[in-house]
Amino acid sequence: MQGFGDRLAAASERVGTTAMVGLDPHLSRLPRCLGVVDGAPTDPAGRAAAALAVQRFNDVVIEAVADLVPAVKPQLAFYEALGSAGWAALEHTCARAREAGLLVVADGKRGDISSTAAAYARAILDPAGPLGADALTINPWMGSDTLTPYMGLVAEHGRGLFVLVRTTNPGSAELQLHGDRPACHTVCAAIAAQNQRLGGSGWGPIGAVVGASSADEATALRARMPRAWFLVPGVGAQGGSMRDGVAGARSDGLGALVNSSRAVLFGPESADPAATLDDVGAAIRARAQDLAAGVRTALDA
Amino acid sequence: MQGFGDRLAAASERVGTTAMVGLDPHLSRLPRCLGVVDGAPTDPAGRAAAALAVQRFNDVVIEAVADLVPAVKPQLAFYEALGSAGWAALEHTCARAREAGLLVVADGKRGDISSTAAAYARAILDPAGPLGADALTINPWMGSDTLTPYMGLVAEHGRGLFVLVRTTNPGSAELQLHGDRPACHTVCAAIAAQNQRLGGSGWGPIGAVVGASSADEATALRARMPRAWFLVPGVGAQGGSMRDGVAGARSDGLGALVNSSRAVLFGPESADPAATLDDVGAAIRARAQDLAAGVRTALDA
Repeated sequence: MQGFGDRLAAASERVGTTAMVGLDPHLSRLPRCLGVVDGAPTDPAGRAAAALAVQRFNDVVIEAVADLVPAVKPQLAFYEALGSAGWAALEHTCARAREAGLLVVADGKRGDISSTAAAYARAILDPAGPLGADALTINPWMGSDTLTPYMGLVAEHGRGLFVLVRTTNPGSAELQLHGDRPACHTVCAAIAAQNQRLGGSGWGPIGAVVGASSADEATALRARMPRAWFLVPGVGAQGGSMRDGVAGARSDGLGALVNSSRAVLFGPESADPAATLDDVGAAIRARAQDLAAGVRTALDA
Repeated sequence: MQGFGDRLAAASERVGTTAMVGLDPHLSRLPRCLGVVDGAPTDPAGRAAAALAVQRFNDVVIEAVADLVPAVKPQLAFYEALGSAGWAALEHTCARAREAGLLVVADGKRGDISSTAAAYARAILDPAGPLGADALTINPWMGSDTLTPYMGLVAEHGRGLFVLVRTTNPGSAELQLHGDRPACHTVCAAIAAQNQRLGGSGWGPIGAVVGASSADEATALRARMPRAWFLVPGVGAQGGSMRDGVAGARSDGLGALVNSSRAVLFGPESADPAATLDDVGAAIRARAQDLAAGVRTALDA
């Protein structure tokens, strides 16, 4: 099977953008027509009802964006907050997205080793497992052996990882930039080594989460990981600029998978009791088109 | 409500040990009488059957150890590998453990910020959420703001965190000991500061995962975090010695919560088709008594 990095490149070229839509179902912002207003259900029945609304909302999102973007990124925390019902909705959503031709990047930031990491691999990436996602975000704090248990699925089933290299939150520098030689450069080297081994002539399967706060930093990290896809969070609601977001792209316009979640999912129609699901889907589609075009424009600038 | 650190101290004094039993249900090692032999079910029906077996096994474990140890530690990955059915079993197990008077330390090593971390807090620690665990393991790579979203539940509901400071896997030094001043000391300082603020005169609510590979290192980390409970993995099947495991304890014998999973859960009876669940429970109880006594002996040495 083709490797994940090349699969993502092909999918991006097919739709003409490297924008990604994040599936972060904030309950309090779901469309009113889905009936959920309580942002934190406190019993199993409430969680089941909320999970069903999430599932229906995601169906609408997937149908609206399937031909516009190469991938969607469910944020696992929002599903876990609804317990087993939330995980059932997540399973449904991942299956629906794959059927629609989208790649699924599971944002779980898992970081463990050995048999525990192997269990996460089965849970999230294994084609025969409950989610069967195409890629998973990984936290490298425990060391490069956090990657090892995934490598079978990476090599044999075209799965990918996005390893947390740099983020943009206030405390992100404390550990990521620790030391005279920043700690995150150690992570870059591990990613580059894996891609050298596995990437053939194209994009490697091991990507990097690279925050969008500085174009210079993204360019410098690109030099350290020439074959790694960057997952760029923080564009849109989180305030990153699109120009910084794409600074890690290569000259062919590929390499920066720019995510936007809330800015695509939620608009004025969400709060409008008269808006139908068709209205919601149309509004999401229009905002996803804007996002895709915005990424293209920023790359051309 | 009493803080988590003091709750754990009281529970440990009640049972007379700081040993903890890990609930890591390796499917291939579950008792034969529960009928599961396939270690990796590949469809929803197989996952549901396996999850039911896990749930029944955990019921046996909880009944066997409830009066022997202060806490149990479910490893979330093993439940997630069974998808929504696994999460349902985890919900059942957490509820059953709390009813039995055990503290529940959810080992998920979550590491995120802002609304995402708040969703993990609802998922795992909130008393009104699906798991309602007492404590959660946390990955600090994104910085000290990974702790902030949990602090409401910590202060108001006696919840605790165990932050990954040092682990014992082969690659653990790459980032944790990076720099002239090791990066993990930055994490120690963040933990100590939170406990200074929240801990009153006793144990603070923010603990540290401290691997058991070196007694000297555990002692040095204790000096940096005088009020933090240490969660010590790696005793038993993972090969850590008990003597090293308790080296971070204070002179009163408290402070090192020593976990053992496989070495307590699985013995020859698991593979014996003639063994009943009563036999399994008795064998687990005997091994948990050995663990509890072993921790006491090591502390007295």
